[in-house]
Amino acid sequence: MQIGFIGLGQMGSAIAANLVAAGHEVTVWNRSLDKATALAAAGATVAGSPAEAAACPIVATMLADDRAVEAVVFGDGGLLAAPQPTLHVSLSTIGLALADRLDAAHAAAGGGYVSAPVFGRPAAAAEAKLFVVAAGPAASLALCQPLFDAIGQRSFHVGDRPSLANVVKLCGNFAIMSVIETLAEAMTLGEKHGLPKAALLEVLTGSLFAAPVYQNYGRMIVEESYRPAGFTAPLGLKDMSLVADAATAARVPMPILSLVRDRLLATIAREGDDIDWAGIARVVADNAGG
Amino acid sequence: MQIGFIGLGQMGSAIAANLVAAGHEVTVWNRSLDKATALAAAGATVAGSPAEAAACPIVATMLADDRAVEAVVFGDGGLLAAPQPTLHVSLSTIGLALADRLDAAHAAAGGGYVSAPVFGRPAAAAEAKLFVVAAGPAASLALCQPLFDAIGQRSFHVGDRPSLANVVKLCGNFAIMSVIETLAEAMTLGEKHGLPKAALLEVLTGSLFAAPVYQNYGRMIVEESYRPAGFTAPLGLKDMSLVADAATAARVPMPILSLVRDRLLATIAREGDDIDWAGIARVVADNAGG
Amino acid sequence: MQIGFIGLGQMGSAIAANLVAAGHEVTVWNRSLDKATALAAAGATVAGSPAEAAACPIVATMLADDRAVEAVVFGDGGLLAAPQPTLHVSLSTIGLALADRLDAAHAAAGGGYVSAPVFGRPAAAAEAKLFVVAAGPAASLALCQPLFDAIGQRSFHVGDRPSLANVVKLCGNFAIMSVIETLAEAMTLGEKHGLPKAALLEVLTGSLFAAPVYQNYGRMIVEESYRPAGFTAPLGLKDMSLVADAATAARVPMPILSLVRDRLLATIAREGDDIDWAGIARVVADNAGG
Amino acid sequence: MQIGFIGLGQMGSAIAANLVAAGHEVTVWNRSLDKATALAAAGATVAGSPAEAAACPIVATMLADDRAVEAVVFGDGGLLAAPQPTLHVSLSTIGLALADRLDAAHAAAGGGYVSAPVFGRPAAAAEAKLFVVAAGPAASLALCQPLFDAIGQRSFHVGDRPSLANVVKLCGNFAIMSVIETLAEAMTLGEKHGLPKAALLEVLTGSLFAAPVYQNYGRMIVEESYRPAGFTAPLGLKDMSLVADAATAARVPMPILSLVRDRLLATIAREGDDIDWAGIARVVADNAGG
Repeated sequence: MQIGFIGLGQMGSAIAANLVAAGHEVTVWNRSLDKATALAAAGATVAGSPAEAAACPIVATMLADDRAVEAVVFGDGGLLAAPQPTLHVSLSTIGLALADRLDAAHAAAGGGYVSAPVFGRPAAAAEAKLFVVAAGPAASLALCQPLFDAIGQRSFHVGDRPSLANVVKLCGNFAIMSVIETLAEAMTLGEKHGLPKAALLEVLTGSLFAAPVYQNYGRMIVEESYRPAGFTAPLGLKDMSLVADAATAARVPMPILSLVRDRLLATIAREGDDIDWAGIARVVADNAGG
Repeated sequence: MQIGFIGLGQMGSAIAANLVAAGHEVTVWNRSLDKATALAAAGATVAGSPAEAAACPIVATMLADDRAVEAVVFGDGGLLAAPQPTLHVSLSTIGLALADRLDAAHAAAGGGYVSAPVFGRPAAAAEAKLFVVAAGPAASLALCQPLFDAIGQRSFHVGDRPSLANVVKLCGNFAIMSVIETLAEAMTLGEKHGLPKAALLEVLTGSLFAAPVYQNYGRMIVEESYRPAGFTAPLGLKDMSLVADAATAARVPMPILSLVRDRLLATIAREGDDIDWAGIARVVADNAGG
Repeated sequence: MQIGFIGLGQMGSAIAANLVAAGHEVTVWNRSLDKATALAAAGATVAGSPAEAAACPIVATMLADDRAVEAVVFGDGGLLAAPQPTLHVSLSTIGLALADRLDAAHAAAGGGYVSAPVFGRPAAAAEAKLFVVAAGPAASLALCQPLFDAIGQRSFHVGDRPSLANVVKLCGNFAIMSVIETLAEAMTLGEKHGLPKAALLEVLTGSLFAAPVYQNYGRMIVEESYRPAGFTAPLGLKDMSLVADAATAARVPMPILSLVRDRLLATIAREGDDIDWAGIARVVADNAGG
Repeated sequence: MQIGFIGLGQMGSAIAANLVAAGHEVTVWNRSLDKATALAAAGATVAGSPAEAAACPIVATMLADDRAVEAVVFGDGGLLAAPQPTLHVSLSTIGLALADRLDAAHAAAGGGYVSAPVFGRPAAAAEAKLFVVAAGPAASLALCQPLFDAIGQRSFHVGDRPSLANVVKLCGNFAIMSVIETLAEAMTLGEKHGLPKAALLEVLTGSLFAAPVYQNYGRMIVEESYRPAGFTAPLGLKDMSLVADAATAARVPMPILSLVRDRLLATIAREGDDIDWAGIARVVADNAGG
C-alpha cells in the first residue's frame, strides 16, 4: 500500500520504519530534512511537502501538538493544498475541536479523515507493539487496517465520529497521570511510615494492580528516575490541557484532572522542562518534607 | 494446626470455612451465636468467649473496624484476658495506631502479634483466592504460613513491624478508590461527548489497564450497579479515614485521598448508607448534570 | 473631554451615562444600535463604527470578552482602522495575553493603551461607585484620570505595563469566587448541625469578615437567590478560565482556582446558563444531600 | 462577680487580667503554677485545683485543645469533682462532640454549660477587643454577660445548644485559612507576572476586601513574616481537623477544607512546628518554583 507519512520525531520515525518493514511504499516528509533522510536509507521516498506526500491514497501524521497538525494540513503546501484529496489518518494526540475541524475540512475537500491516536512509548513503537485507537467511517477504517496492523499489537474501533478516538486517547493519558499521582501519594505515605517504596509496589502489582502502567511508572518512582524523560512534563501538561478543554466544553467537573494539571505546573516550575511527567512524584514527596 | 477464629461476618465466615476445609482444628467465636453455629456444622468448635478461643496457639481475627478489634482484645473475656498468651493474627483492615498498640499489648502479655490484612471481596474469600499482606517477626510469620496458604492465592511479607502490613492494605484500598474516581471522571467525560462508557472501558482494560480492579469496578460503573453493595460507602469512608489518620500522623498531604473522602461523604449524604463505595461514580455523573 | 465609548451592555451603559453626566463629550458605539440611541437621548453622539469613535483622543471599551474586544480593535472598522491613532482604555475583564497584544498593536499604530478594568456590579456602576484598577504609562494614566474620576469612587495605579491591571482584576474575581465557595461550605456545615445560615453570616460579617463581598454574597446564599443573575455562571467561568490561562503561562498551581472552576462547570451543567455565579453554593449544598 | 478561671496561656492570661481589671473576684488555676502567681500579683486568688476554682458560680476555661479540657473537667480534681455544681463557660476552640459531652455531663451533675469561644489573637485579648460567640440556655448566657463584656468588644448569641457556638468558631477559623490560601495563590500568580504582592493587597483591601483578616494576613504574606508564630501551623491543623470531624459527622464534603488541611501538613512537614499557620503561603509559593 502507498502510504504518506508526516512527522518523524521519536514516535513517528519508529512507526514509519515499521511501515517500510511491513512492505508498504512509504513517502515521508518532516520539517527538518535529516530525519527524512534516515528513513530514505531504509527504503522510504522523501517528499518535498505534505501536499506531495498526499499523492498517496493514505497519509498518516504523527506530530507534537495541535499547532503542528494545523500547519501540516491547513498551511502552505499542506495536505489540503494537494491537487487530489486523500485519506488523512491522524495518529497524534490532539484535541477534540481540532479533530472535528479536520474531519469537516477533509470532507469538504472530497477526502477522508480518521483519528487513530496510539498508546505506547517509543520503545513500544519500535517493536510495533502500540495500541491503536481508531474512529471514523467503517470504510475508511477498513482501508487503514493494514497500516494499524503494521504498527500495533491491537487496534480498537470506537465509533464513526473520528474525535471519539481522541476522547479515548485523552482519557487514557488522564488515567495514566492519575495512576502516577496515586502511586506517588501512597509510596510517600508508606515511606514516611518506614515501608520501602519497592515493597509497596511489589504487593500492588502482584495482586489487584497487575497492569503495565503500574509496573512501569511504579518502577520509575521507586528509582526516582525522571531524566532523560520518556515523555516530558510539558507534553503531559499539553495533554491534560486538552482534556481540560474537552471537560470545559462538555461541562464535566474532573477534580483529579485539575489536581494533576496543578501538579504538572508545580513540577515544571520547580524542575524545568526536561523532566518526565512521572516527575510529579518528586513534588508529591517534596510536599511531605522530602 | 489449632486455630482460633474470631469474627464471622461475610469475609470471616468464608475464611474460617476454608481453614476447616484445609484440615485445621478451628475454634470459632462470634458476637452473635448463629453464625458460629453454622461453622460448627462444618466441623468447627464454638468457643464461649474470645479468651476461650485463645487457648489455640494462633488466633485470627476478622472484624469490622478498630472498635470491634479493641473489644475482642482488650474487653472482658478478650484475648488478653486468656490464661495463656497466644499469637494474634489480625486480618482486619485497621489503623496503624491500633496495630502498634496491639503489638505492644501482646508483647507485654508474653504473646505475639502479626498484622495480615487481605485484599479481595467475599467471592475471593470463598474461593481461597485472597491476597494476604503480612508483617511481623519472621518466626511468627512462619507459624502463620499454613493459615495464609489455606485462605489465599498468594501472601506477601512486607516487614518485621506488624503495622507495615496495615500501611500496605490502607494504600491498596486508597488506590482502588482512586481508580473508581478516575474511571468515573473519564467515563462521564466520554459519555457527554457521545462515547459509550463500555467502549472506553474496553480500550483501557484491553491495553494499559488490564488489571482486575479496572475490569471489576469499570463494569459496575458501566452497569450503574451499586446495590446490593459488595463493600459499602460507609466502610469505604472508614478506610479512607484510617488512611487520613496515617497521613496526618506522618505529615503527608494526599490530595487524591482528600478528594475521594469528600466524594464518599457526598455519596452517603445523597444516596444513603447502603450504596457500594463504587457509587461515588454516581455523584461524579450527577455533578456533570447527570 | 472628548471620549469615545464602545460597548453599551449593562455595565457600559451605566458608565457612559456617568461620563455624559460629568460633562464629557461622549461619542458612543454599540453593536446593536438601540442601546446607543438611548445614550443619544442623554446627550451622547452616536458613531457609525469603532473607528469613527476613535476620532476622540481617548476611547474606552467595555465589552463582554476577549473575542468582542478583538473584533472592536482588529476587525473591519475597528480602532486600528481609524485614520489617526487614539489612546485606548480597556475597562473590560480580559486576559493577559490579549492585553499585551493590544498594548503592542496600539504602540505600533502610534497610539496608546491603558488597561483599566473595574470592580463593581451594575448598581455600583450606575452610582459611579466603581473601583478602577489602572496600569499603563504615567502620562497615559494622567490623561485618563478625569474619566476614572467620573465613573468610580477610587482608582488605583498598579504599574506601567497595562496587563498588570488585568492581573489584579483577575485575582480579585478569583478571590470573590473563593469567598462564595468558602461561605457555601461553612454555611452548609453549620446548617447540617442546626445552625441557621443567617446566624453564621451575622457573626462572620460582624467580626473579622466585615467586608462588602461577604455581606453581599453571604446574603445571596442565605436567601438562595440566584436568579435573575447579577453576574452569570458562564461569565464567571470565562473569568476563571482567564485566570487559569495566566496561571498556566506562569506555571503557578492554584488549587482553589481549579476547585471553583470545577464548581462552575457543575453549576452550569446542573442549573443552566442563567444562574448567578454565586449559585455554586447550591451545588455545594446538593453535594451534602441538600 | 466571682469567677473561676482555668488556663493561663497567652490568651487566658490576658483574658483573666481583664476580668480582674473589670472588678471581678477571680480565682485562677493553671497546670504550671508560675503563670497563676503572675495573676495573683494583679489581684487574683490562686486555687489548688480546678475543683477548687469551681466554688465560684461561674468557671471559665481557656485551654489548648480537647484533651486539656477533658482533663480539667473529667480528671482528678476536675470541675465535676467539685462538691457543688457550677456554670462552666468554655472559651476554648474545641470540637462539637466534646461540647455536647460537656453539656450533658454538667447537666447530669446539676450544673450548667455554655460554649463561648472567641475570635482574636493575643493582642486583641489584651485590649479586651475579642469577639465572643456564645451559645447555651438564655438564663446561663445572661449570667455570663458581664464576663463577656469585660473581655470582648462584642458578643453574639447563636442558639440554645452550646455546641452551635463551636460550629461558628470552627467555621470562622476555616474561613480565615481559606483567606490565607486564596491570598497566597493570588499573590504568587501576580508576582510571577511582575506584580508586587503589596500592590495587589493594596487594591484588594482598598476595595471589596476591606476586612481585618485580609489586611493582617495579607501583610504577613507580603513580608513573609511567619516566625515567631502568632498561631502555629500545628494549632491550625488541630482546628481544621476539628472542622473535618464535624464535616464527616454531618456528611458534608468541604473541598477547600481538605485543601487547607493538606497545605498545613505540607507546611509542618517542610518548615517544622514553629511556623505560623499563615506560613502555608510559603508552600504555595514554593510549589510555583519559589
